[in-house]
Amino acid sequence: INNSTGSDDPKLQIDHSPHFRETRPKTKKTNETTTTPETEGLSTIETALSEDAAEGRGMFEGGYRLPHPIWNEEELESVKITHQPPVTVVDKIAYYSVQTIRRGFDLFSGYTLGMYTGRLDEKQWLKRIIFLETIAGVPGMVGAMVRHLVSLRKLKRDHGWIHTLLEEAENERMHLMTALRVANPGIIMKACIMTAQGIFVSAFSLAYLISPRFCHRFVGYLEEEAVKTYTHCLKAIDNGELKMWKLMKAPEIAIEYWKLPPDAMMREVILVIRADEAHHRTVNHTLSSIKPDDQNPYPPGQ
Amino acid sequence: INNSTGSDDPKLQIDHSPHFRETRPKTKKTNETTTTPETEGLSTIETALSEDAAEGRGMFEGGYRLPHPIWNEEELESVKITHQPPVTVVDKIAYYSVQTIRRGFDLFSGYTLGMYTGRLDEKQWLKRIIFLETIAGVPGMVGAMVRHLVSLRKLKRDHGWIHTLLEEAENERMHLMTALRVANPGIIMKACIMTAQGIFVSAFSLAYLISPRFCHRFVGYLEEEAVKTYTHCLKAIDNGELKMWKLMKAPEIAIEYWKLPPDAMMREVILVIRADEAHHRTVNHTLSSIKPDDQNPYPPGQ
Ligand SMILES: [Fe+2]
Ligand SMILES: [Fe+2]
Ligand SMILES: [Fe+2]
Ligand SMILES: [Fe+2]
Repeated sequence: INNSTGSDDPKLQIDHSPHFRETRPKTKKTNETTTTPETEGLSTIETALSEDAAEGRGMFEGGYRLPHPIWNEEELESVKITHQPPVTVVDKIAYYSVQTIRRGFDLFSGYTLGMYTGRLDEKQWLKRIIFLETIAGVPGMVGAMVRHLVSLRKLKRDHGWIHTLLEEAENERMHLMTALRVANPGIIMKACIMTAQGIFVSAFSLAYLISPRFCHRFVGYLEEEAVKTYTHCLKAIDNGELKMWKLMKAPEIAIEYWKLPPDAMMREVILVIRADEAHHRTVNHTLSSIKPDDQNPYPPGQ
Repeated sequence: INNSTGSDDPKLQIDHSPHFRETRPKTKKTNETTTTPETEGLSTIETALSEDAAEGRGMFEGGYRLPHPIWNEEELESVKITHQPPVTVVDKIAYYSVQTIRRGFDLFSGYTLGMYTGRLDEKQWLKRIIFLETIAGVPGMVGAMVRHLVSLRKLKRDHGWIHTLLEEAENERMHLMTALRVANPGIIMKACIMTAQGIFVSAFSLAYLISPRFCHRFVGYLEEEAVKTYTHCLKAIDNGELKMWKLMKAPEIAIEYWKLPPDAMMREVILVIRADEAHHRTVNHTLSSIKPDDQNPYPPGQ
């Protein structure tokens, strides 16, 4: 068998690997590059990757993005709006905080009215998405920093939580970077974002120092709402309310980051973002339910 | 040529890769696993990895640690004490701040006297190392968080700095985790660490918001001092002042994290830590010299 050229021979593979590694030390290739047949076409891009695409490229493919799940079609379409009923007092405070914030924001931003009249256009959707994603990137980074500093000052190990929180933070920031490829926010928007971040960073940092359990539940409920929002967005695309997005191609950064087929459309971008939000929902509800010094059950990119 | 079994045939390697990836999706193997012949022995550990070793395992090997350089013997032994002369006013403020802090700390902690009399023992070295590493883990995390939040609130890309800063932060925390495997710090020590972190986190965060250039230069000079300290420590091991460390085996977490040979000694641990510090020295001097919105020239783990 050893003399055949059969590429299925596992022994041959083992022999190859060290040689491959030594001669091309900079190339860090993993399964993610070619998990789906659709992404095969990307190999042609590899030689001359556009700057925008390069920015979406993951660490395992020689880029610098943290690992994150790559969803298949079944996973993408099967995302459901779910609700985990609050049990403890902490859960309830988290749940009603999120509900209050959401209702207030929806009313103030014109979303409630727009959903009622069915007249939210692409620009309004983008404003909402951009604003929410600038907020969504905060909790993961704050959580990671607090746990890092606690580990340093209490001289204790972290139990593997930090990488998951950082992955969430970067993933949310990539949602924002993607949305920015199709919008140019104005000065009022920017001022709102600055103010909101100032308030949210201080409040969330303080809350994380007091009760990580509350914070992860809060994010869990926030993500339940995010899944709702993106599901409504998908419906709006499908029933013809967002005609431009129906015809719009996915930006390159998104194709590379989520390993979408080269001809992916805007709808697929919303689909993968929604799947990410559903993932954060599960992860944060889980992290809230385990003890802060239990081992994090999530490996990198999962 | 295609029909031969020669493992040097590049075409064969390309054929193998997708198959390998599809059948073993969870295994993320890269060059780092088998760069040195010494680490080959680790494959036997893989099946039953101790908890301590598992905690040191990198992301590319199925663990959750961020990528970081794996040094070869030549790199380890060729680390030199270097000094980059301050040029601008900002450089000079950074340099003299570090010098003042170091002199004060050396005097106060008894290091100046101990070095003079040649009577610093293992316990005193460990105290110094632990204290300094709890501080060393701060700048990378603060820098990463500030840049992440700036990217979110200014709606601008980050230019690939965050991953390098996070890698530095985790690497410093791994120095601490390793040192903690060979020491049990007392209550006074812990109180000092808490206080120092409180002061340093506030001061450094504020400084990073005002001048990232100053901050990276400051860390560059701090790392110049770290390389000095670890070089003195190595000398103390070599000339018989630290008899215990001459006979001490490396903790498992260190063997796994730095891919050391299974029979590595404490001296090798100090060597890799020193190489890490020399690396942070270069990286931070570079990041201080380029503009904050230039592309970060360092890929992950390098
Ligand atoms: Fe998001
Ligand atoms: Fe989210
Ligand atoms: Fe260090
Ligand atoms: Fe350092």
